[in-house]
Amino acid sequence: MASDYIPPVEDYRFLFGEAFGLDLVARGTAGAFSAEDATEIIAGAGEFAASVLAPLETIGDRAGARLEDGQVHLPTGFAEAYRAFVEAGWITAEAPESAGGDGLPGSIRAGLGEIWNGSNAAFALCWLLTAGQIHALDAAASDELRETYLTKLVSGEWTGTMNLTEPDAGTDLGAIRTMATPRDDGSWSISGQKIFITWGDHDVAENIVHLVLARTPDAPAGAKGLSLFVAPKFLPDADGNPGERNAVTTVAIEHKLGIHGSPTCVLSYEDATGYLVGEVGGGLAGMFVMMNSARAGMGFQATGISNRAYQQAAAYAEGRLQGAVFDRPAGTPIAEHPDVRRLLLSMQSRLYAMRALGVYLGDLFDRAETDGTGVLAEFLVPILKGWATEDAVALTSDAIQVHGGMGFIEETGVAQHYRDARIMPIYEGTTAIQSNDLIGRKVIRDSGATAEALFSEMAETVAALRALDDAVAVRTAERLERAVAAGRAATASVLGFGQSRDAYAVSVPYLMLLGTLAGGWMHALAVVAVLSRETAGESDAERLRSADFYGAHHLPRVHMLAETVAAGEVA
Amino acid sequence: MASDYIPPVEDYRFLFGEAFGLDLVARGTAGAFSAEDATEIIAGAGEFAASVLAPLETIGDRAGARLEDGQVHLPTGFAEAYRAFVEAGWITAEAPESAGGDGLPGSIRAGLGEIWNGSNAAFALCWLLTAGQIHALDAAASDELRETYLTKLVSGEWTGTMNLTEPDAGTDLGAIRTMATPRDDGSWSISGQKIFITWGDHDVAENIVHLVLARTPDAPAGAKGLSLFVAPKFLPDADGNPGERNAVTTVAIEHKLGIHGSPTCVLSYEDATGYLVGEVGGGLAGMFVMMNSARAGMGFQATGISNRAYQQAAAYAEGRLQGAVFDRPAGTPIAEHPDVRRLLLSMQSRLYAMRALGVYLGDLFDRAETDGTGVLAEFLVPILKGWATEDAVALTSDAIQVHGGMGFIEETGVAQHYRDARIMPIYEGTTAIQSNDLIGRKVIRDSGATAEALFSEMAETVAALRALDDAVAVRTAERLERAVAAGRAATASVLGFGQSRDAYAVSVPYLMLLGTLAGGWMHALAVVAVLSRETAGESDAERLRSADFYGAHHLPRVHMLAETVAAGEVA
Repeated sequence: MASDYIPPVEDYRFLFGEAFGLDLVARGTAGAFSAEDATEIIAGAGEFAASVLAPLETIGDRAGARLEDGQVHLPTGFAEAYRAFVEAGWITAEAPESAGGDGLPGSIRAGLGEIWNGSNAAFALCWLLTAGQIHALDAAASDELRETYLTKLVSGEWTGTMNLTEPDAGTDLGAIRTMATPRDDGSWSISGQKIFITWGDHDVAENIVHLVLARTPDAPAGAKGLSLFVAPKFLPDADGNPGERNAVTTVAIEHKLGIHGSPTCVLSYEDATGYLVGEVGGGLAGMFVMMNSARAGMGFQATGISNRAYQQAAAYAEGRLQGAVFDRPAGTPIAEHPDVRRLLLSMQSRLYAMRALGVYLGDLFDRAETDGTGVLAEFLVPILKGWATEDAVALTSDAIQVHGGMGFIEETGVAQHYRDARIMPIYEGTTAIQSNDLIGRKVIRDSGATAEALFSEMAETVAALRALDDAVAVRTAERLERAVAAGRAATASVLGFGQSRDAYAVSVPYLMLLGTLAGGWMHALAVVAVLSRETAGESDAERLRSADFYGAHHLPRVHMLAETVAAGEVA
Repeated sequence: MASDYIPPVEDYRFLFGEAFGLDLVARGTAGAFSAEDATEIIAGAGEFAASVLAPLETIGDRAGARLEDGQVHLPTGFAEAYRAFVEAGWITAEAPESAGGDGLPGSIRAGLGEIWNGSNAAFALCWLLTAGQIHALDAAASDELRETYLTKLVSGEWTGTMNLTEPDAGTDLGAIRTMATPRDDGSWSISGQKIFITWGDHDVAENIVHLVLARTPDAPAGAKGLSLFVAPKFLPDADGNPGERNAVTTVAIEHKLGIHGSPTCVLSYEDATGYLVGEVGGGLAGMFVMMNSARAGMGFQATGISNRAYQQAAAYAEGRLQGAVFDRPAGTPIAEHPDVRRLLLSMQSRLYAMRALGVYLGDLFDRAETDGTGVLAEFLVPILKGWATEDAVALTSDAIQVHGGMGFIEETGVAQHYRDARIMPIYEGTTAIQSNDLIGRKVIRDSGATAEALFSEMAETVAALRALDDAVAVRTAERLERAVAAGRAATASVLGFGQSRDAYAVSVPYLMLLGTLAGGWMHALAVVAVLSRETAGESDAERLRSADFYGAHHLPRVHMLAETVAAGEVA
């Protein structure tokens, strides 16, 4: 059994109001929301998640989704939970105002993303894809499509999916073969097979809207020939309600390592009806809106699953007595064994780093339109997605280790997080795809300007730490300064390689370096925030310890990775 | 489905005859076996494993062991395979001559251990525990016990288990509560509950011999009060054949993350009959013989599972065409994508490092009695066990990543290796237990003398590399020299901490540093061997590349870890 879910409200309170030295939410929303409002929203979401979503996590894993006579069924409780989720307004909360949603700022949506994923990652994927599609349709759909589909998605009545992958077109989207042929009535006929479609069919909502990448007749080869289509499970009738069944069939669902509560479908389109979104040939651009949203969402999922695994490990270690603990009185729980404590601090400090970077990124997106931070936001998306998901896999493994032999027993529940987490570095673009995007489009293309802007911000934090009279601040400044130098050296290596195999052979180490470094920066900012305050907070000591631990155990990885990056491809 | 199993015969040929600059097998056995003999034995074992054991691996995972009416049943095929395994003489091959076995040298047994585990890890656990018990009984059992039990184990008719853990006595063996009370007839009455008993019951052999740690009446508290007992499933009759059922009951079997083909039992002893092995109070010493054997065996299991995962990933990547490969002609498989190639080389280079260290350790044990290498062997056991098993978990994760989305689908088979591997850093003593043994008993106790002896040997390899006129040799020498310096610095840190929480809070990073460094040394020795030969070998280029890759991607980790070790406990 998974442990109870405890929403990380205090961390979000700190992140919204203190960690960055200002009310981040108020700045990002020009005062429309404050850090206090944001914390209340997070607390409310946390309460909902703990009471409604978390209890279904184990059930989803054990019972799993099943396909019967062409219809996917979720385990008992999922449909009710989804209805409650919609009625509580959590789908609408995700949607921008332009689409009729609440227009919550990105910093808050980062927190919500963590909470849905942390309480029930399989369930959260339905939310994630629906939210992604809302953003994609809001950006590109015609008024007619907005009225028919977007409103139903925003109200939560219908859910969304993302149809990219085919048996021979995964990472290489240019190989997509699904065809869309125009019909006389303005609709399109779609035929082909799509695989790995998350929540591609289910019984928790009355209709499903598929966003499908397909090739049009006479389109150029490769990715440029792709267009984007909306294809619903049930075609809307004259009143906009689900009518006739569209020619989309669920052929199979996958038997997976984890996220069993999320149905992964093989969908077959046979002369199915679809509607063009945006321009012919503009499919990839349109899908990228959804994909970018989903990639940032993966950072929040990584944080959520990591949080759940950490909480379970911490609860076990604090409740378990066994043997004498080195230099501690009898009756001390195993959480104080030097190595168990190391594992818990290791998890906790990585968790804070990814959570903080998620909020920081969410805020950047909000400010993107007004102050040009969009470039930095785009730079950080692949880093958060790649680094946080890879780290989350390692973190969930640590959570098993804390349990000893019990961790390997499925009933303990912690193994589920380990199984669930393993998909994250793969879907929504593998870590290699993220790293290629990073070095190809975001480092080499602007000759390292954005990377250097980021390093300069970090250097300012080093200066701020130097002004503080505190041992942790002194250590953190020294470590961060060296780490920034390693980041600059690695960036110079990548720029030296240019568009070559040398660059792409070390793109993942480079991405992991920047992610690890960004995590260290997040901790450094927390140190500055905590030590700059007049009145001490309850969690101050813990925050300083966490930063110090990250600096000693995780941040040094940047030096290892810089050496790897410098070597280029090993011929 | 798992891929076909290809025995790594060529690597063992190289390790036995070339890697260490001499015929290692002939030296270790004073000429009784040569490297050529050894390679033939490995080839024979590999053939058996590929045809008999490997086909059962997926079956074991899917069907799993099941408990019915107090009897554990293995999936169809396991009993036949075990019979064939015994008939082919592979149990007897493991036993020392003193126990009526073949007395194969440790270097060959390292290779066999890898092969059984690599073809079917769940099956191999039965072999591993039986072999461990053979060594334990050979060291401590009375003539009567030898005749009744040891001969049956060596012949393969009966199998062995290791009964340590109880619900409140896992890592802390001193908390064991199972009681053994002497009876008038010289036997003992054993009562208590043991958990996590691997192959604790099954239907593949006619009898099972449990080696049980229990407390005797009036024994001192803690580990000193423990004695060792043999307790069979069926009590031998007058002819030594399985007779009456002993009072040992299988209460449950565990539902685990992996190794489903290996039954993990809860055993209840209720006035069961047992026989004392060795002296009263000498239980832990006796069990340590078995445990040491099992811990080295974990190194071979880590190698075996890693090899299987690597082979499956390599086969997939070499057979899969998708999209254009950077700077390679059309039709190049994904194995040549820069990042897929990185993942494959990363796996392959770690695999060689652990395989080589296993053979090196096996050889040290052989020479222990004649030239005092036993101290170094004991030093390396926790390093191999801790480092190789942790690295194997990361390596099987890489194997999933190479497959992309297909890696997450259970039918692909690669996820099984990831699930199976996760138990290795836990059982036979967690990584923390290995690291505490390492720093407490093997570094601090002799003031770093053994560690320094190892570093000096590595420094000699640096000198040998320097004498070679080759770019890889130059790079390897420079990297290894810096890494040895990091190892010395970390050892000085640990010695400076002494027996304190500072030392035990960084014992795992210290162990991982030494393991990573030892792996780099193994590669460096291979570079020397390859470049010192007159005639080039077919696999030379690959070996040099592997060493170069390890030096660029894995060895730099020692610097990261040295920084972590130096920090001690983060207060």
